[in-house]
Amino acid sequence: MKKSLLLFASLLLATAVWGFEIKSPSENIVVNFTLDGKGTPTYSVSYKGKAVIEPSSMGFKFADGKDYSNWFTIVKVDTTSFNESWKPVWGEVSTIVDNHNELTALLRHVPTNTFMTIRFRVFDDCAAFRYEFDRDSNHAYIKVANEVSQFNLTGDHKTFWIPGNPDSNEYRYLTTPLSGIDASKADGNAIGTHMIVANNCIQSPVMMKSSDGLYINIFEAALSDYPAMMLTIDKNEFCFTSLLAGSAVKGVTAFLQTPCKTPWRTIIVSDKAEDILASKSILNLNEPCKIENTDFIKPFKMVGVWWEMHVPRRSTWNYADEWNLKLEGTDWNALKPNGRHGANTENVKKYIDFAADNGIDAVLVEGWNVGWEDWAGNWKEEVFDFVTPYPDFNVKEITSYAASKGVKMIMHHETSSSVTNYERRIDSAIEFMKKWGYTGVKTGYVGWIIPRGETHDGQWMVQHYDRVIKKMADAGIMIDEHEAVRPTGQCRTYPNLLACESARGNEFNAWSDGNLPEHETILPFTRLMGGPMDYTPGIFKIKMSEYYKDGNNCQVHTTLAKQLALYVTMFSPVQMAADIPENYLKHMDAFQFIKDVAVDWDDTKVLEAEPGDYITIARKAKGSDKWFIGAITDENRRTTEIKLDFLDKGRKYIATIYADGKDADWESNPVSYSITTKKVTSKSVLKLTLANGGGCAISIFPIK
Amino acid sequence: MKKSLLLFASLLLATAVWGFEIKSPSENIVVNFTLDGKGTPTYSVSYKGKAVIEPSSMGFKFADGKDYSNWFTIVKVDTTSFNESWKPVWGEVSTIVDNHNELTALLRHVPTNTFMTIRFRVFDDCAAFRYEFDRDSNHAYIKVANEVSQFNLTGDHKTFWIPGNPDSNEYRYLTTPLSGIDASKADGNAIGTHMIVANNCIQSPVMMKSSDGLYINIFEAALSDYPAMMLTIDKNEFCFTSLLAGSAVKGVTAFLQTPCKTPWRTIIVSDKAEDILASKSILNLNEPCKIENTDFIKPFKMVGVWWEMHVPRRSTWNYADEWNLKLEGTDWNALKPNGRHGANTENVKKYIDFAADNGIDAVLVEGWNVGWEDWAGNWKEEVFDFVTPYPDFNVKEITSYAASKGVKMIMHHETSSSVTNYERRIDSAIEFMKKWGYTGVKTGYVGWIIPRGETHDGQWMVQHYDRVIKKMADAGIMIDEHEAVRPTGQCRTYPNLLACESARGNEFNAWSDGNLPEHETILPFTRLMGGPMDYTPGIFKIKMSEYYKDGNNCQVHTTLAKQLALYVTMFSPVQMAADIPENYLKHMDAFQFIKDVAVDWDDTKVLEAEPGDYITIARKAKGSDKWFIGAITDENRRTTEIKLDFLDKGRKYIATIYADGKDADWESNPVSYSITTKKVTSKSVLKLTLANGGGCAISIFPIK
Repeated sequence: MKKSLLLFASLLLATAVWGFEIKSPSENIVVNFTLDGKGTPTYSVSYKGKAVIEPSSMGFKFADGKDYSNWFTIVKVDTTSFNESWKPVWGEVSTIVDNHNELTALLRHVPTNTFMTIRFRVFDDCAAFRYEFDRDSNHAYIKVANEVSQFNLTGDHKTFWIPGNPDSNEYRYLTTPLSGIDASKADGNAIGTHMIVANNCIQSPVMMKSSDGLYINIFEAALSDYPAMMLTIDKNEFCFTSLLAGSAVKGVTAFLQTPCKTPWRTIIVSDKAEDILASKSILNLNEPCKIENTDFIKPFKMVGVWWEMHVPRRSTWNYADEWNLKLEGTDWNALKPNGRHGANTENVKKYIDFAADNGIDAVLVEGWNVGWEDWAGNWKEEVFDFVTPYPDFNVKEITSYAASKGVKMIMHHETSSSVTNYERRIDSAIEFMKKWGYTGVKTGYVGWIIPRGETHDGQWMVQHYDRVIKKMADAGIMIDEHEAVRPTGQCRTYPNLLACESARGNEFNAWSDGNLPEHETILPFTRLMGGPMDYTPGIFKIKMSEYYKDGNNCQVHTTLAKQLALYVTMFSPVQMAADIPENYLKHMDAFQFIKDVAVDWDDTKVLEAEPGDYITIARKAKGSDKWFIGAITDENRRTTEIKLDFLDKGRKYIATIYADGKDADWESNPVSYSITTKKVTSKSVLKLTLANGGGCAISIFPIK
Repeated sequence: MKKSLLLFASLLLATAVWGFEIKSPSENIVVNFTLDGKGTPTYSVSYKGKAVIEPSSMGFKFADGKDYSNWFTIVKVDTTSFNESWKPVWGEVSTIVDNHNELTALLRHVPTNTFMTIRFRVFDDCAAFRYEFDRDSNHAYIKVANEVSQFNLTGDHKTFWIPGNPDSNEYRYLTTPLSGIDASKADGNAIGTHMIVANNCIQSPVMMKSSDGLYINIFEAALSDYPAMMLTIDKNEFCFTSLLAGSAVKGVTAFLQTPCKTPWRTIIVSDKAEDILASKSILNLNEPCKIENTDFIKPFKMVGVWWEMHVPRRSTWNYADEWNLKLEGTDWNALKPNGRHGANTENVKKYIDFAADNGIDAVLVEGWNVGWEDWAGNWKEEVFDFVTPYPDFNVKEITSYAASKGVKMIMHHETSSSVTNYERRIDSAIEFMKKWGYTGVKTGYVGWIIPRGETHDGQWMVQHYDRVIKKMADAGIMIDEHEAVRPTGQCRTYPNLLACESARGNEFNAWSDGNLPEHETILPFTRLMGGPMDYTPGIFKIKMSEYYKDGNNCQVHTTLAKQLALYVTMFSPVQMAADIPENYLKHMDAFQFIKDVAVDWDDTKVLEAEPGDYITIARKAKGSDKWFIGAITDENRRTTEIKLDFLDKGRKYIATIYADGKDADWESNPVSYSITTKKVTSKSVLKLTLANGGGCAISIFPIK
C-alpha cells in the first residue's frame, strides 16, 4: 500500500500550517507531523492517547551559519505500510516481526533551496524518524554544526542517565528527575577520558518513567557515517535537544556528502517496562544482513586471561616492568620479565585445559603482544603492532595445543585508541589471525583517540568501527568491541559484530567503587537497547580482599547467584566466564549453570522488569527445548512468583534452581547459594527469593 | 680527537656564567655557547670576525606550562672533530666532504631535573645545533608547546621570505628588510590552504643579505618525527624565534618520547652568495643512506600528461563533468565522458612515442584513476583508491606499449590530503605499481589534511611522509612529493626521495599572476637548500592566450632560453620536460638541450649568484666529460662573462649556446632564441647576454 500526496510548492505559503498524522499498526502510537507558521518541522508522539512527546522541532544547524530548522515548505508527502518478518543470524528470538507505518515528507528549505526528507516509521512500541538528503549537486557537501532534534517531554520524569562524554560510556547510572540532571555529579570513568560536555548534557540512550506510568526510551538506530547523539536537557521545559559528538574541527560535527541520511531517532514507549526490553524496533530500523555467508558466525562462550589482571596483585598485561619503551627498536627478548605476566604459555594452557574440560568454546588472551609496558595515557601513536608476541607467549605451541583440545583462541587487539596505527596494521593483523586460526577478536579503544582531536563517538571513529567490522566480516572473523561507540542495532546488518562493551563493565568491581547493585537492572534499558554487551559476568570470588588481605576492599556488588542470572538477563551471543578457573573449581556445582546456559536463543520472555529495581527473563535455547531463567534485583531483597506458562503444555521438565542462600547478601555474604532441583510443567509457579543485590538462575530441561 | 670537560653539578651555581667556544675547521665560523646568569642556554655566531648571530637564547616551552629556556646548569661538555667524505647515490657532486667540529653540552634543568643536550656542529659554511633528550623514564613523554630557539640578527637585513603557513609553501617570494616583513602582504596560494599564522611569521628557510656583505640562510636539517619550523620576527630586535607547525591539539606542537632529538637548526653563512648554493652542510647533517640496495634509484627525465591540464581549455584530470560522486558505489563506466580527459590511452601513447623518439626516460600520467570529478575543497575522505583506472585508461595496453618502447611509466598518487585514506590504501597501491612495473611515483597533497586539524608541516604529517618514503624504498620505488613539507636534506638518508615540490612551481604561470621573473633566482637560496625541486621547467609555448585567444593573459614569466637554463640552475635528479609534445615539435632545435642535459652530476661550479638577481651554474654530467651551463636573470637584462677554466686543461670542446634572441623579452617576445656553436677550451671566456627575464643554456661536449 502506498499513498502519495503530491503538493505543489508554488501553492505553499511559508505561513501555512500543514499537519499529517501517522499511526502505528495497532494505533497505540500516533505521531503528528506539522510545519508550523515559521516553517519549522514539528512532531509529537502519543501512546494510547497519552502524550509522550509534545510538539518538538526538527532540523539542523549547518556550519554555513544558517538555520535549517525553519522556513521549510512541504513538497510531497508519502505514506506506506510494511509488515514482514526476518530471521536474525543469532539473537533473543528466532524470528522478528517488522510491522510499521511510514510517512516521508519531502521538504524544501526556502532560503537555500535545500531539499530534505524527514522519514517517520511508527511501530507499536516505537516512533522513529530520520533526516535524508537526496543527491543534490547544488548542495553536494554538507558540514553539520549540530542536529537540533527536540524531544519535548510531558513532565519531570524519573530518568536513568550517564553524563554526555563523547569519549566514554563507562559511568555508573544516576537516577534523578529530569530536573535533577547534573553531569558534574557523575563519577569519573576509569579509562582516563572523563571530560563531560556540559552539566545538562547526557548520553543517549536515556531511559525514563513518567508519573502517568509510561516507560520511555530515547535513542538512535543504524548509526553510520555520522556522529553519535548526546542529549542536552532544558530543565524548565523538560525538553531534550540532540547534541552530536564533535570532530577535530571546531564547529563541525559531521562532514556529509549527499545522498546521505542520519541515524534514526527512536522513541520507544510502553506502559509496561517489559515491552521496552522486548522491543525489536531498533533492529528493525537497521538494514538487513549484508554478509553473504554467515557460516563463520557462531555465538560462543569463553574464558580468558583477563580477570587475573584486574584483581589485586595477581597478573599483568605487561611482560616487563620497564617503562618508556618504543615499539620499534626495543629488544623484547632482552627485557627482564616481571614474573607476573599473565599471557604466558603455561598459564594460557591452563585456561585451554579448563575450557576443554568444561565445554567452553574459546579462550581469550590479553597482554599477549608486545607494547603493554607503557601503552596508555601518553597519546602515543606507535603502541602495538598486533603481531609480535611476548617472548613467553608461544603462539605456535598455544594454538596447536588449543586446536588439539578443540578450543578456539580469541585474538585481542587493544589499540590504545591509536587508531591510525591500527588502521595501518590491521591487514597484517588479520593475516596473522588467519594464519593461526583465530576466529574472533576483541578490540579495545582505551584512551584519547589518534587522530588527535577526534572522539570515540565522533563521525570519524564511527566510520572506523564500521570499517573494522567490514574488514573482519570479509576475513570471516567475529568481533567484540570494547570502549567503542555504543551500538545502535547494526549487528543486524553485520552480525559478525557479536557484542560491544560501551558501558561500565564488571571489571570496575575489581578496582573501583564498582557498579551499584542496581547497575545490571538499568543496563538492559539503556546500553543494551542497541545490541549485546560483553559484560563479563560469572565472578565467583566476590571480594578482592581474598586475593590480598591488606589490599583494596573492592568487591563485586552482587551475590554469586546473581552473577549466574546475568547470563540470561544480559543478552550476548558471546559470554565470558570471566573469573579465574581456580575460583570456578571451588564451585563447580554453581559453574554447571555457566556450562549449561545458552548464548543464542529461539525465544525470550521478559517476565518482569522495572528499571533500577529488577529484571526476570526466560529464554529458550536455540534449536533446543531447554529454557533458562535469570532473575536479578537491585540492593533490595525481593520475592516474586513466576509462572512457567511459556513451557510446552503437558510436557515435564526438571528445573535446577541456583538461588541465593537464605543468609546471602551482596555485601556481607555474597557467595552463599543453594542449588535445588524440582520437576515443573507449564502450570508450575516458582517462588523466588532474591537476596539484597541477589539473583536467581534457573535451567529448565525437558525430561526425556 | 675528543676532549671532554667533566663538570661536577654540585659545584655549579645557577648564577655562574659558563662559556665555550667552538670554531669551524678553517676558523671562519666561531660559535660561542654560554649559560647566562639565569641559566639560559645562549649562543652566538660570527663569520670571519663579523657577528652573524648575536647572543640568542635556546630552549623550549613544554605543554606542562613550564619554561625550559632558563635555570639550566651544565653537567658535562664534550668536543670532537670530524672529517670524512661520502658519495651520494645521486647529486650535484660525486663526493661530499663532511668536515666539522662538534660540541655537546649536557644540561640539567634544575626546577624539573630534566636533562637536555645541546649539540653544535660547526662547518666552514654553517653553524648548526639541535636539542637531544636521552632516554629518561622520569620524563618519558614530552609534549612540546613550542621550541624557542632564537636567531638574533645584527641589523635590518635584506630578506627573501614567504609567509608562515603550515599548510603551504606555494607563494611568490617577497623581498623586504627584516623590518618590512608583513605576511598579510603575501598573495594567496592556489591550493586553497592559504591561512597565514601571524603577520610577523614566515616560513623557513629564510635567505638574508646583510649590509656588511654577508649572505645568511636560516633553516633546518634532518626534520623527522617533529614539526617543521617557521620563524617569527621581532622587528625591533631583528630577532627570529622558532615557531613549530601546529597539531590538531591546541597548545601542543610535538608529542615526543625520549630518547629523541630535534632537527638541526642551521645558519649557513658566507661573504659569497655562491657559497650558499654550494653548501653541503644540510646534507652532511642528515644520516647516511639507510637503503641497502640503491640500484633501483636512477635519476630520470620525464614528459607527462600534466601541463595540458593547466593550460586554458585543453584537458581535464576528470573523465566526466559530473559532480558529487562517491568513490564507492559510482559506476565509472556509466559516466558520460566530457571528451577532454587527458589520461586516455591514445593520448598517453603519444607521450610514450615522444619520449621514445627523444630519449626521455619516462612518462607521468595524472588523472588516470577514478575520483577526480570532485576531489578537492570539501575535506572529503574517500576520494581516490589509487588502483582503479578511468574507463578510457587501459593500463594493460599502456604499460605494455611503454615497455615495448623502453619507456618507464610514472605513477601518480594525488591524495587530496586525505592521508588516512592514502595510508589505508597505500599497500594495495604499491602492489598495483609492482604489478604494472611502475618504478616511480609522484605524490600530491592538495587541500586540507585529513586527519582533520593536522597540518602539512606538522609532526603527524612529517611522520607520514617518512612512512611513505620508507614504504616506497622497501618496494624499490622512487618518489617525487608535491605539496609536502619542504625537504631538509633527508634525500641523503633515503635517496629514493628524488625531489619535492614544496614551493610555487611553474604551473602557477599557466593560470595565475604567475611567478615573478626573479622567482627562480631565489628558489635555490631558499626552498632548494633542503633538496631538489620538481619545478617542471621546459615550457616552450609561453603565452596562454595562444591556446585560447579570449582566455586568460597568463604567461610564463621567462624567455624560452631561460626555461632551458633552469634544467641546470634548478637541480633535480628528476626533471620534467613539462610542455606538451606538440609544442616541442615546433622547436626541436631548442629541445635538443633538454634531450642532452643530464640529471645527475659529478661536479658543480656555482659561477655567479645573487639572490633575487641572477644565477649561473656549470655542471659536469655523471660519468661523462660533458658540461652544461645554465645562466638566468631576473626581470633585468644582464650581460656577463664566464670563464670556462673548470674544463680539462688542453682539451677541446664544442659549446652549443641556447641564448635569448637579440629582441627577446620575457613579456613581449619570450620565444625569441638563437642557437650557436663555438669551439672552446679551459681558457675560453664566454660573453653571455640575457634578456629581461631571460637566460642562457649551454652544452659543452668534448671533441673526440
